[in-house]
Amino acid sequence: MLAVTILGSNSAIPAFNRHPTAQVVQNAEQSFLVDCGEGTQMQMNNYKIRSSKINHIFISHLHGDHYFGLIGLLTSIGLAGRKHDLHLYAPEILKDIIELQLRVASAHLPYELHFYSLKNEGILLEDKKIIVECFKVKHRIECWGFLFREKKYLRKIEIEEVKKYNIPIAFYERLHKGDDFVDENNTIIKNESLTSAVAPPKTYAYCADTLYDEELIEKIKNVDLLYHEATYLHALQQKAASRFHCTSIEAATIAKKAGVKKLLLGHFSSMYETLDAFKTEACSIFENTEVAEEGSCYWI
Amino acid sequence: MLAVTILGSNSAIPAFNRHPTAQVVQNAEQSFLVDCGEGTQMQMNNYKIRSSKINHIFISHLHGDHYFGLIGLLTSIGLAGRKHDLHLYAPEILKDIIELQLRVASAHLPYELHFYSLKNEGILLEDKKIIVECFKVKHRIECWGFLFREKKYLRKIEIEEVKKYNIPIAFYERLHKGDDFVDENNTIIKNESLTSAVAPPKTYAYCADTLYDEELIEKIKNVDLLYHEATYLHALQQKAASRFHCTSIEAATIAKKAGVKKLLLGHFSSMYETLDAFKTEACSIFENTEVAEEGSCYWI
Repeated sequence: MLAVTILGSNSAIPAFNRHPTAQVVQNAEQSFLVDCGEGTQMQMNNYKIRSSKINHIFISHLHGDHYFGLIGLLTSIGLAGRKHDLHLYAPEILKDIIELQLRVASAHLPYELHFYSLKNEGILLEDKKIIVECFKVKHRIECWGFLFREKKYLRKIEIEEVKKYNIPIAFYERLHKGDDFVDENNTIIKNESLTSAVAPPKTYAYCADTLYDEELIEKIKNVDLLYHEATYLHALQQKAASRFHCTSIEAATIAKKAGVKKLLLGHFSSMYETLDAFKTEACSIFENTEVAEEGSCYWI
Repeated sequence: MLAVTILGSNSAIPAFNRHPTAQVVQNAEQSFLVDCGEGTQMQMNNYKIRSSKINHIFISHLHGDHYFGLIGLLTSIGLAGRKHDLHLYAPEILKDIIELQLRVASAHLPYELHFYSLKNEGILLEDKKIIVECFKVKHRIECWGFLFREKKYLRKIEIEEVKKYNIPIAFYERLHKGDDFVDENNTIIKNESLTSAVAPPKTYAYCADTLYDEELIEKIKNVDLLYHEATYLHALQQKAASRFHCTSIEAATIAKKAGVKKLLLGHFSSMYETLDAFKTEACSIFENTEVAEEGSCYWI
């Protein structure tokens, strides 16, 4: 199970109490911060997101509304006493910016900050539970999307059935993984009769800032939840394209063509005080659409 | 008349809904922004501070809680269409940081940003109404305080008196400035009988982050309002000193020795949820003390 909490749903200029982009992706074990616009540390306070659970931060690109809050967060968690490592994935030059800002303050972080330059599409991080990949999106400057894929859950052992066959505990790990058991008489006991399936693993794609781009479709195909930017309503399609952004209709079209289960729209222009029209427009193309609301948690 | 609006009253880590340092000093004509911690642009929205009236920004030093909100503000006002010049006074290296952050975003500001490096104590800015000076304070890195001095107000002409003596309009400007009038019979008509005094010009000193430093006293002597940091209560005096900060008692001692009219305490550590004790402690030394409250406007 994954959960996405929106900390900032707006595009460049904060407005109508909406903040620049930031969100937290959580599984049962840890939290991942995706983008970090100005005010993210305050939004984390507001919505009870614990920074100690965040070990990995992903920055899509270096427009300020996606990273101006990062240096403040990095220094604040240091001042608050963080000691454990933090991993940061971002366009290469961000390392220079952070180092410069620490240097002029004669400051150093009391924890290890591991920096990984985004260079090629593919896996950034893999542990027992999750894989995080990056993929290129088309924006005015270098920009990346992120794909979170839970690993297949282990099958659940039906203990009463397992006991019937005297299966040794040492074999349980293989049962979890789906292997059949072969007993001393060479009888095959099918895994399905010893274990039960659990929910399928979940996938989440974060598309950052992007032009309408059908090359995205393959990259995010069939994900459970797609976060796609919709900076403008469709009446401003030309303006959107000229600024390397999308409209509600375009985001919904990508969602439909990629066969995703659900679409979450975000990165709204500060010209819009209310957002209902984004949902209405998108739903005309792809029904299972929601408008990202700050503080809301979207379960996958 | 001057007014100081507090946008951020906290020290390094935002907490208890208090923000890092920023404040706006206003006279009848314009606004001056002093320091610009993360979230300043949102606080300006919250408290209806119009960025278009801000033409001068002063940054005391390059600890993040005093400037991490600057780049966001500079870019947001550009995106919102600002065209008129902006003047920025700060430690020299800030120029490099801003230029780097604009460059990586392939962004440029649509207005002229004039950068002035803080190098020597003295006048930074002077117009018809006000003089702004900087002075050195003692902190862990290069750090500056700012002194706002209104110019002497012009005397108010008492029009009935002036008419009695047939004083030509061309002489009014000299009357405003306090000159006596000499009529055709060489009779001196004293200025005091033709004009009346207005309120004395006001002074405001902002002391940024500083150690307890008696060298400050001469620099801020007799100001109408002194903003002095009080990061800690006096029980933590040693901690304060080790971090180049002050306590409530130390700030009040400076206020008393400098003979200021009123003291405003700020830059509170995030370890304090409530601030009443700051006022109590300071008032034991210097009675006319207030605790800076975000959104409040302090008139001078």
